[in-house]
Amino acid sequence: MTAVPNEHGRCGSPSLEYMFHPRVIAVAGLTSDPDKAWLNECYITPMLEMGYKGQLYIINPKGGQIGGLPAYRSLQDIPGPVDYVISCIPAQHTPHLLEQCAGKGVRVVQFYTAGFAETGEVEDMKLQERLLEIAGRSGMRLLGPNCMGIYCPESGLGFSRDFPKETGPIGLLCQSGGNSGYIVRSVAARGLRFSKAVSYGNACDINECDLLEYMADDAETKAVVAYIEGTTDGRRLLDSLAGATSTKPVVVLKGGCTEGGGRATASHTAALAGVDPIWDGLLKQVGAVRVYSVEEMADVLVAMLRMRVPRGTNTCVVGMGGGANVLATDDCEQAGLRLLRMPPYIGDRVARLIPRAGGMLRNPIDAFPLAMSPDGWRDLVAILDDWRELDLIIFHYAFGGPPLPACHETITPALEPMLSAAKMCRLPAAVVLHSIPNNDSWQASLKVQQICIETGLPFFISMGGAALAIRRAIEFKSANPGKIPGLESQDH
Amino acid sequence: MTAVPNEHGRCGSPSLEYMFHPRVIAVAGLTSDPDKAWLNECYITPMLEMGYKGQLYIINPKGGQIGGLPAYRSLQDIPGPVDYVISCIPAQHTPHLLEQCAGKGVRVVQFYTAGFAETGEVEDMKLQERLLEIAGRSGMRLLGPNCMGIYCPESGLGFSRDFPKETGPIGLLCQSGGNSGYIVRSVAARGLRFSKAVSYGNACDINECDLLEYMADDAETKAVVAYIEGTTDGRRLLDSLAGATSTKPVVVLKGGCTEGGGRATASHTAALAGVDPIWDGLLKQVGAVRVYSVEEMADVLVAMLRMRVPRGTNTCVVGMGGGANVLATDDCEQAGLRLLRMPPYIGDRVARLIPRAGGMLRNPIDAFPLAMSPDGWRDLVAILDDWRELDLIIFHYAFGGPPLPACHETITPALEPMLSAAKMCRLPAAVVLHSIPNNDSWQASLKVQQICIETGLPFFISMGGAALAIRRAIEFKSANPGKIPGLESQDH
Repeated sequence: MTAVPNEHGRCGSPSLEYMFHPRVIAVAGLTSDPDKAWLNECYITPMLEMGYKGQLYIINPKGGQIGGLPAYRSLQDIPGPVDYVISCIPAQHTPHLLEQCAGKGVRVVQFYTAGFAETGEVEDMKLQERLLEIAGRSGMRLLGPNCMGIYCPESGLGFSRDFPKETGPIGLLCQSGGNSGYIVRSVAARGLRFSKAVSYGNACDINECDLLEYMADDAETKAVVAYIEGTTDGRRLLDSLAGATSTKPVVVLKGGCTEGGGRATASHTAALAGVDPIWDGLLKQVGAVRVYSVEEMADVLVAMLRMRVPRGTNTCVVGMGGGANVLATDDCEQAGLRLLRMPPYIGDRVARLIPRAGGMLRNPIDAFPLAMSPDGWRDLVAILDDWRELDLIIFHYAFGGPPLPACHETITPALEPMLSAAKMCRLPAAVVLHSIPNNDSWQASLKVQQICIETGLPFFISMGGAALAIRRAIEFKSANPGKIPGLESQDH
Repeated sequence: MTAVPNEHGRCGSPSLEYMFHPRVIAVAGLTSDPDKAWLNECYITPMLEMGYKGQLYIINPKGGQIGGLPAYRSLQDIPGPVDYVISCIPAQHTPHLLEQCAGKGVRVVQFYTAGFAETGEVEDMKLQERLLEIAGRSGMRLLGPNCMGIYCPESGLGFSRDFPKETGPIGLLCQSGGNSGYIVRSVAARGLRFSKAVSYGNACDINECDLLEYMADDAETKAVVAYIEGTTDGRRLLDSLAGATSTKPVVVLKGGCTEGGGRATASHTAALAGVDPIWDGLLKQVGAVRVYSVEEMADVLVAMLRMRVPRGTNTCVVGMGGGANVLATDDCEQAGLRLLRMPPYIGDRVARLIPRAGGMLRNPIDAFPLAMSPDGWRDLVAILDDWRELDLIIFHYAFGGPPLPACHETITPALEPMLSAAKMCRLPAAVVLHSIPNNDSWQASLKVQQICIETGLPFFISMGGAALAIRRAIEFKSANPGKIPGLESQDH
């Protein structure tokens, strides 16, 4: 049984250890009502499928079977201690449940239940206050309300069936339940995995600061990503962020950075979004990497954790197709990468390899004539590796461009020599699989993405996104030597 | 036979009429060599599948069968006149072919063949000059070299099997063959169709100015889109663009807008990319809509041609999921749309419709509690239609957010009430199907995209892209009243 928490905590926060590694879980508020059965898919099925090794109990006043498990009529009926309770019951009944939790010695209660401070109604705000009072008397900690809870593959905890079962280096704290799903799926689709992810909603008790402090000290977490809508304690947030950024990369997506967005966060998680320039200054001050979308977040994580971050921005772009190379070059240079002019000692060798008709021999290189030629690609990479001023090679393919409809049976073998060359490259390399206009292109790109994941090649799905993320990783590395985990040691 | 050109031309350019509506086509340079058979898929199969009604001949000195058609040993062996020749033969043999074309009275010759001025080699530039000399003596027009040629569904002409067979309002001129495929597929995937598309490569004879002038006068073309890498006649380009923008929307993607991109265009199509601020000034001066990616181009076309363009930027965002609504709001406001505060005369009615727990009742509106309720959605839209200050409603769905894995069997029915409400809306409306992190989400979104296409709902696949495109369409409409075709008349 891996799910034994250390009473003293690995980071001095025993309650959060119980939350991530509970020995016994009880879920209240699930029903066999078909209209609400989807909640069982969040709070029973994922844990069974992920191999949660502790005890999982269901509480329902009517008893019976729910989601294939026997239901206990009350928390008190469950034999022995319960570490972690998940509440899906209506808001007005939560104080009663919480009193029972206090009596049972429960360590942490997570409230999926919504209808508290985020509604803006006085009575709902008071109800949230009452939960805090009850919890405070017994030392229980509260997660939420209005949140999805915990994903921790090491412990077999999760709230979505399609979250990866494997563990990884990324720790996520996310004020939105929906965005936590979107972030986990987006990042997982790029071949990255999570140590733990927390959807923390209204943050009435456990908040972004607690979670940042935990993640900062957590040995399983090598990089921290956060979606934050607001804070009630700017000074502590500054300290928590600074503590985290002092040891690992921290990537932050601030929700509610516009006037309308700020109104939306208040309505969503009762968060005070604050004034954006203050957030921007705070994130800059502590050295966090600020991103503006989930896509950008995933790109930055790929650049930092799946590729060897280049020393500088001197880039060579190699792809197939002239127009694709022109747009790729514009995308790279607009994002701050620099396509070097090819010096004669490199250009002459490239020109001997690629026939001039149909091949762009400067930088970018249109390597269309090398398609299907493993030797040609290997020779090309060997030449580029000798280019002394170069920091980075971007290999790319535009799926929507060729005159033949995209088809993985033909595209995969045509790209394999390029992927092998990228893998062999001594210089830092990235693969960009982009220009995906329709389902044929998507299906073909998916097969190639899978090869990249399996062979450890860092890949991106838009050239602009790749270039921006790589440039930001270069800047981060330059300002924070040694702080990017993992592939750093393979650096040239 | 629809493919009879008017000798006098519909727009005073008889040669281009022959190019778009050739009665007889001959293709030279195809072989039965399996390594090059993919070219048959560009220059035989699409025309057969699209129902080209003229005569299609194959020329090969060895005779025999190519792509299922009998091959003639030379152009002279073909009985009767030939309007249009497609050349895929090696560059060094093109003068000989062109002499034969002159003798046969061919009107237009398209050169897929590359290896001319774009290589930057003196002898290749001279070869391109020689083609021009030969053509000039007989009045033949040349398309390319180094291009894919013509897509004209009305005539049954095309160079890719997956281009739509149906005709539509968009005329495309594209200096890149690959980008022409990417543009056609991207725009087609949004439910839009083309009157004609031209990949024109090195533009040694027929150039961007000829094509803009043709498209400006072409009654089948209601909006012009262009991917241009460079020009050799800035003054004429200014006049041609001004002529086109005076009658219809013109959307331009300039390839090679960075220093490296400019080097790339020279190597790609021998184009002089020019200084970007000059291009920017020129495009602004004539009132063209400048875009920076193919995705942005597709978004702008959807906003202009598939939706009723709003009068102003006052927007209400309606979706399911709190975090998705926060990010949607930020995306909209960052792109220049404005989420109005909901006035009490609207807010009170919305609050009676949507329970406050789990619903964001301001603007944005989290309509999660209305999922699966056609009546609820209909009532919501009726309320919003009464909001006097409102210009636009954006309905959206984030596929990657919900805790359950995306699955079209459950998502499609859950979204149908929202789509029906969007369709019923009196105010201009758009649908945004976004946050698509993986294959499950993509497959589910594809079904909903299909419903939008079939029911005539304008849809976008990213919130930021939608907001930017809609804002630009609003600006265009305000500066050019009456110039956006089609749905304008349905305006509220």
